Amino acid sequence: MIQKPSIPKGTRDFGPEEMSKRNFIFDNIRAIFQKYGYLPIETPAMENLSSLLGKYGDEGDKLLFRILNSGDFASKVDDSVYSARESNVLSGLFCEKGLRYDLTVPFARFVVQHRNELSFPFKRFQMQTVWRADRPQKGRYREFYQCDVDVVGSNSLLNELELIQVIEDVFEILNLKVVIKLNNRKVLAGIAEVVGQPNRIIDITIAIDKLEKIGLEKVKEELTEKGLPVLAIEKLQPFLQIKGTNSEKIAYMRIKLAESEVGMQGLDELQKVFDYLKNLEVKVPIELDLTLARGLNYYTGAIFEVKSLEVEIGSICGGGRYDDLTGVFGLPDVSGVGISFGADRIYDVLLQLNKFPDSARISSKLLFVNFGEVEAEYCLKLLSKIRKAGINAELFPDPSKMKKQMTYANDKQIPFVAMVGENEMQQGKINLKNMETGEQELLNLDELIRVISS
Amino acid sequence: MIQKPSIPKGTRDFGPEEMSKRNFIFDNIRAIFQKYGYLPIETPAMENLSSLLGKYGDEGDKLLFRILNSGDFASKVDDSVYSARESNVLSGLFCEKGLRYDLTVPFARFVVQHRNELSFPFKRFQMQTVWRADRPQKGRYREFYQCDVDVVGSNSLLNELELIQVIEDVFEILNLKVVIKLNNRKVLAGIAEVVGQPNRIIDITIAIDKLEKIGLEKVKEELTEKGLPVLAIEKLQPFLQIKGTNSEKIAYMRIKLAESEVGMQGLDELQKVFDYLKNLEVKVPIELDLTLARGLNYYTGAIFEVKSLEVEIGSICGGGRYDDLTGVFGLPDVSGVGISFGADRIYDVLLQLNKFPDSARISSKLLFVNFGEVEAEYCLKLLSKIRKAGINAELFPDPSKMKKQMTYANDKQIPFVAMVGENEMQQGKINLKNMETGEQELLNLDELIRVISS
Repeated sequence: MIQKPSIPKGTRDFGPEEMSKRNFIFDNIRAIFQKYGYLPIETPAMENLSSLLGKYGDEGDKLLFRILNSGDFASKVDDSVYSARESNVLSGLFCEKGLRYDLTVPFARFVVQHRNELSFPFKRFQMQTVWRADRPQKGRYREFYQCDVDVVGSNSLLNELELIQVIEDVFEILNLKVVIKLNNRKVLAGIAEVVGQPNRIIDITIAIDKLEKIGLEKVKEELTEKGLPVLAIEKLQPFLQIKGTNSEKIAYMRIKLAESEVGMQGLDELQKVFDYLKNLEVKVPIELDLTLARGLNYYTGAIFEVKSLEVEIGSICGGGRYDDLTGVFGLPDVSGVGISFGADRIYDVLLQLNKFPDSARISSKLLFVNFGEVEAEYCLKLLSKIRKAGINAELFPDPSKMKKQMTYANDKQIPFVAMVGENEMQQGKINLKNMETGEQELLNLDELIRVISS
Repeated sequence: MIQKPSIPKGTRDFGPEEMSKRNFIFDNIRAIFQKYGYLPIETPAMENLSSLLGKYGDEGDKLLFRILNSGDFASKVDDSVYSARESNVLSGLFCEKGLRYDLTVPFARFVVQHRNELSFPFKRFQMQTVWRADRPQKGRYREFYQCDVDVVGSNSLLNELELIQVIEDVFEILNLKVVIKLNNRKVLAGIAEVVGQPNRIIDITIAIDKLEKIGLEKVKEELTEKGLPVLAIEKLQPFLQIKGTNSEKIAYMRIKLAESEVGMQGLDELQKVFDYLKNLEVKVPIELDLTLARGLNYYTGAIFEVKSLEVEIGSICGGGRYDDLTGVFGLPDVSGVGISFGADRIYDVLLQLNKFPDSARISSKLLFVNFGEVEAEYCLKLLSKIRKAGINAELFPDPSKMKKQMTYANDKQIPFVAMVGENEMQQGKINLKNMETGEQELLNLDELIRVISS
């Protein structure tokens, strides 16, 4: 039976052209991570569902891809449960494993599982795919890469500073203009306190996180719907409308949050990071954004988000400090801070701005035309020497028509084509064509290597 | 609830040490692939089950990891089918997607799906994980890497030659001694013909493939059990016991297979490849092995296998030519040839032989000791300049005890430690300790950069 080939929706194939561009991003990000002493780890694509469930909220649980147990999975379920036929119950019985949803939870699991082999503070990076059964749409995939960098086992704010330096370096090397938005969960807690709703911090942060998207009135509506008292909403409003430089914002907040210990602590932390940045003359624009919450409840200190200044798109990097991510796996009181680069969105931004350098292209530098059996055998020996000189090169495998071979070189963007026919063989020369200029030169092997290497 | 952290059996975490070693393998293999003009592609982890089922035999179908459909999967099945409760039927209805089992079938699917964007012959490599629900045991995992390199759209035997060169280069750069075993499916077909059993080629090849493992007598028993006539088994025996050099074997076979057109064609192909190799003075030992079949029925020409000469382990690389892999996806008559490197086994071999070079280790070259707030801020500025000079370096984030910080440097195998206290700050110097020799030097920044870079 002949099948029309296709792939699951929300997933993608990457051809050579896209791979070159993607590797340009990954290679640069990896080099920066290593420059700061972060070390690579990898975790399995499949985790036990017990490690994943409950970590991403009810919505997240629904978005996990589950792996059907091998063997006779159906008979291992109680008859009554089987008869009830409830998919959400059965999925928990038919499946023990799921695909990882992010790199943070597997990392927390990794740290606890290997804590006796690790040296703390542990600085790791991880660049792997994650899977989410989200509804696919433009720019949203079911399989995508995350590039995470975290340090666990240190409370020092030097780590927050370092991550900002990493962000600056990554986007500098990628030649992208960005702004880093910074906030602190303790400040959000302080705000919840001074508006008299310390227990409603989650509702408050979820709502104000949407400020940029839906506007002030809608946020107020949402808070009202959630049952927040009118007075509290009124008190909240100045925080949502705060303007000015970072220093002005902090100064203003110091007055407003004076009564809140946790709030003042958050402001001290922010101030300290800004002091470091000033001392180091960090150039990337950094903006204190009190509405930044990132919806994630495990953040306990700094919260980061990076936005492109050139393209309208969601955040291209984000993260924060979490004080107890490993607690659920049995290792309490390990503080960590980390960020995640969204490689797919960064790809989209670079593509839209046409900022991928030509050098990102991986291909042969030289193609030998195949004129037939005798010539091919002759070229093979030259090829070995050219490759030994560090040049990626190939011989067209079939003695096809010249046009076909030149089209191949063109399609593959191979910059030089070598032609060795009977005459050239007699002279011990190679006819080298520069595919960009169209110029041809008759060279010996050493000359050819020099031309192509330069 | 506190969970004891664990991962699914047959899967692995890779810490920094293992990652460095694994990347040493991947980076070298990738560099060789690119040297020969192969370009990278990637395909999704999940494929539609319709693309995977039936491609790996019944046994393979059972080893596929299937992804449970999202939503109310149970109610979408006919009542009668649901009640019958047969897991093997239900798995096909509950699941539409599966994890890729190898890289060959996804590649065939890719070629057909993107045939209008590709330039043929298409030379690609692909280095990704695959998953198999096999019983885990020593050296056998449920998640492992494959490194595949293939060319499709060319019948030329130059491709077979090139893959042998790739094998030679890869194992040379990895510093491993190997033998390449070579056979040709057409020769196997010829043997089946001349023993009078042309339609039993699969049974015959499956049996003789086991010769090395189970010995001649057991192979004969197995063939008898499969109903092969005694006369045929008798006629087969000389082929199983053939000895001598490659030329001697081919000469002998030319007599034995003279009646078989396909057999003689296979011998011609082998001869041609050996001629190329001789012309190129390829040094890796290559052995014509008539019992090599690799059990895979889609091979139609050359069959390759690579064995370590230093460690007793299964094949560490293998492959062959297939004439119609894309046919099932609707693109007939596209011939391809390719090989796959088993990164996990190569890792085991290198580890056993202690052949990973020290340079494979990725880590910071320098750690600044943290003596406190003031010193740390001072060091941060030095650190920026050191990183700009291309040196991976870090500052310990907390002003912990000296012993803890030195242990950290040791564990991370950081070769240099910089100490900058009050005195050094006044002098504008850095006290640099070489962690291997224990020597300390008082240097300025430029001197330090020179020492570490050298």
